[in-house]
Amino acid sequence: MHQVTGWAAATPGAVPQPWTFDRRDPRPHDVVVRVTHCGVCASDRHALAGRDPAAFPLVAGHEMTGVVEALGGAVDDLAVGDRVAVGNIVDSCRTCAACRAGRENDCEAFPTLTYGGEDRVSGGITQGGFSTGIVVDRYFVYALPAGLDPAGAAPLLCAGITTWSPLRRFGAGPGTTVGVVGVGGLGHVAIKFAHALGAETVALTTSEDKADAAKALGADDVVLTRDPEALAHHARRFDLLLDTTGHPLDLAPYLRALAVDGTYVLAGIPPAGLQIDPMSLVVGEKRIAGTGSGGVPATREMLDVAAEHGIVADVEVLGPDRLGEALDRLGRGDVRFRFVVEMAS
Amino acid sequence: MHQVTGWAAATPGAVPQPWTFDRRDPRPHDVVVRVTHCGVCASDRHALAGRDPAAFPLVAGHEMTGVVEALGGAVDDLAVGDRVAVGNIVDSCRTCAACRAGRENDCEAFPTLTYGGEDRVSGGITQGGFSTGIVVDRYFVYALPAGLDPAGAAPLLCAGITTWSPLRRFGAGPGTTVGVVGVGGLGHVAIKFAHALGAETVALTTSEDKADAAKALGADDVVLTRDPEALAHHARRFDLLLDTTGHPLDLAPYLRALAVDGTYVLAGIPPAGLQIDPMSLVVGEKRIAGTGSGGVPATREMLDVAAEHGIVADVEVLGPDRLGEALDRLGRGDVRFRFVVEMAS
Repeated sequence: MHQVTGWAAATPGAVPQPWTFDRRDPRPHDVVVRVTHCGVCASDRHALAGRDPAAFPLVAGHEMTGVVEALGGAVDDLAVGDRVAVGNIVDSCRTCAACRAGRENDCEAFPTLTYGGEDRVSGGITQGGFSTGIVVDRYFVYALPAGLDPAGAAPLLCAGITTWSPLRRFGAGPGTTVGVVGVGGLGHVAIKFAHALGAETVALTTSEDKADAAKALGADDVVLTRDPEALAHHARRFDLLLDTTGHPLDLAPYLRALAVDGTYVLAGIPPAGLQIDPMSLVVGEKRIAGTGSGGVPATREMLDVAAEHGIVADVEVLGPDRLGEALDRLGRGDVRFRFVVEMAS
Repeated sequence: MHQVTGWAAATPGAVPQPWTFDRRDPRPHDVVVRVTHCGVCASDRHALAGRDPAAFPLVAGHEMTGVVEALGGAVDDLAVGDRVAVGNIVDSCRTCAACRAGRENDCEAFPTLTYGGEDRVSGGITQGGFSTGIVVDRYFVYALPAGLDPAGAAPLLCAGITTWSPLRRFGAGPGTTVGVVGVGGLGHVAIKFAHALGAETVALTTSEDKADAAKALGADDVVLTRDPEALAHHARRFDLLLDTTGHPLDLAPYLRALAVDGTYVLAGIPPAGLQIDPMSLVVGEKRIAGTGSGGVPATREMLDVAAEHGIVADVEVLGPDRLGEALDRLGRGDVRFRFVVEMAS
C-alpha cells in the first residue's frame, strides 16, 4: 500500500478537503498513475451530494490524465513516464457477452466504477481521480495519444466517450444531420465530434449567448430553443438528437424534429422519469435510446480520432483547493465548458 | 359514382348497421374492388367508439381482400377478376422523402387513411372495408399472391405488415432472439413471421391457456408474464421485444429482459402515456421504438414471404351482420386470433 492525497467529501454534501488514504500496491497487471488532471462532471456533483453516509469519505473524479509512475510485472506495453488516461470504469467481469464484445460499460455483472465501486479482487471501495494517484488495471488505462493536451484531454474520458459512443453507434457521418441538445460539458465535445465525423451538426440551446460559441466549436447551425415554437420549423430535420442536458425536457417537440427512423439519445440522464406520448414515437417510427459511456475499444478509437482532429475539451483549469467552487459553479452552469482540476503538472 | 353497402356506425359507439353510400367512379389510376373479406382490428373498435360526431356515419375496416371489378384506363398490370388486397393507407403525397423512400406510412403530409381520411383529390372523407366495394389508387392495391386464402390473408394487411415491418427493420433473423409480447391479433402473426425469419421466437403472454397455441404458431419458447417475477429469469435475453398488446405495461421488467442495444417496439399503441425510468434505457444502452404499419414495398415483400411460408392469420369468419358482436368479443379478448368479416365470397 502507498498513501495518496485525495480531495474528499467527508460526508454527503461536504466541500471536498484534502484526505490521505491508501492505494493498493500494483498487482501484476496494474498501472500506478500519478494523476495530473481530472475533469469535473455533473455526475461528480450528484455523487458528492450523495445520500448514503456509508459511501463517505468520497473522492470523486472519473475523467483523468496522468503519468505512469510504476507498473505491475506483467505490463509490458507501457513505460514509466508515459502519458495515460483513465475514465469512469476501472474493471469489469471480462467474461460476459458485453465484455467479450468490448462493451465493458454494459458488463452484465456491472462494471467497477472508478469511485464508489467495489474492487473485484479486494472488495474495497474504489476512490476517484481527484487524488494525486490511482492504481488501475492496464486494460482500463489508455495511452494518451501524442499531441493531446493533458488538461483538455481529461474530459474526453467521460464527456468525450459518452458523446462519441452514440454518435458512432447511431451512424453520425456525411449525409446525416445531428442535433446536439445542450452546449455544456458534454454538448460542446459532441459538437466537435459530430463535426469531425462529417455530419451536418446543429446545436440546440436555450442560451442565446452560446450561439456564437457553438459555431466556433463546429456547429453548422444553431437552433435557439427557449421559444418552444422554434423547433416547429425543423420538423423531421434530425437523424439523431443527442440530449446532453440531463434535464427532464418535454420531448414532444424534439421527437417531431426527428426524421423518419430518427433516434433521440439520452446522453445526460434526466433526474426524473420520462413521460412520453407513444404516438410521438409511432408517427415517423422514431426511437428513444439510452447510452452509457463506452467500452475500451470505443474509447481507444475516440482518443485516436481526437488526436487526428486535434479535439480536446475547452477547459477552465483550477487547483484542487478550488474543487468546491468548481462544483458550485457547475451547478449554476457557469463554466465554458468543463472544469479541470490540475492535481499536478 | 356507384352505390355500395357499408356496415356503418351511425353515431359514436353505435352498432354498425347496413348503410348505402357512394363510391367514386374510377380515376385513370384507380382499381374498383369488390371486397370479399375484411379483418376486425382493435383500432376499428377505437374509431367506432369515436368522439367526434362529425366523423359519422363511419364505415371502418382497413385490412381487406377482394376481387378486381373494374379498372381505370391507366391501369395495365391488373385484370378484372384478380384477387387483390388493400390495407390501412389508400394514398400519400408521393413526393416527400418518406414517400420517395417507399415509407408511405410515414408520409410527411400524412397518408390518406382507408377510412376517416380526406381524399387528396376530391376532399371527401374515406370509408373503409366493411363494405361491399371500395375504389383505391392502383399503387395502394396489392396483388394477392396465389395460394393465400383470402379470409386468412385479409389481416395481413394490418396485423401482418404492422408486425412484419419492425421485425424486418430491426433485423429479426437467425442468431437473434425475438420476444412477441401478447398473443392476439397482431401477436399471433408476429410469431409466425419471426419464426419464418429464422429468429429464436419467444411468446410472452399473461394467458396460460395460450402457451400451447403459441408453440403451435411457431414459438420456440413461452414466458408466462402474469407473475411479474417471471421476466427476471430472462435478463438480457431479447434482441427485440415486439409489444403487440396495446396496453400500458410497466416497461421496466421488459427493458431488463432486453440484450445490450436491444429494442422494445411499440406495435400496439397504449392508450395512455408511457412512464419510463431513463436509467432502464441507459443500463445496457437500450431503445424504445414506435412503429406504424408499413410502406408499399414492405407490404409487397410481406405478402411474398407470407405466400412462400404459407402464412395467414388464424381467423374466425363471420357475416357482416355479426360485426357488432365481433367488436364486443374483441374488446373482451375473446377471439383466436382475428375476426374476419366475409362481405362476399
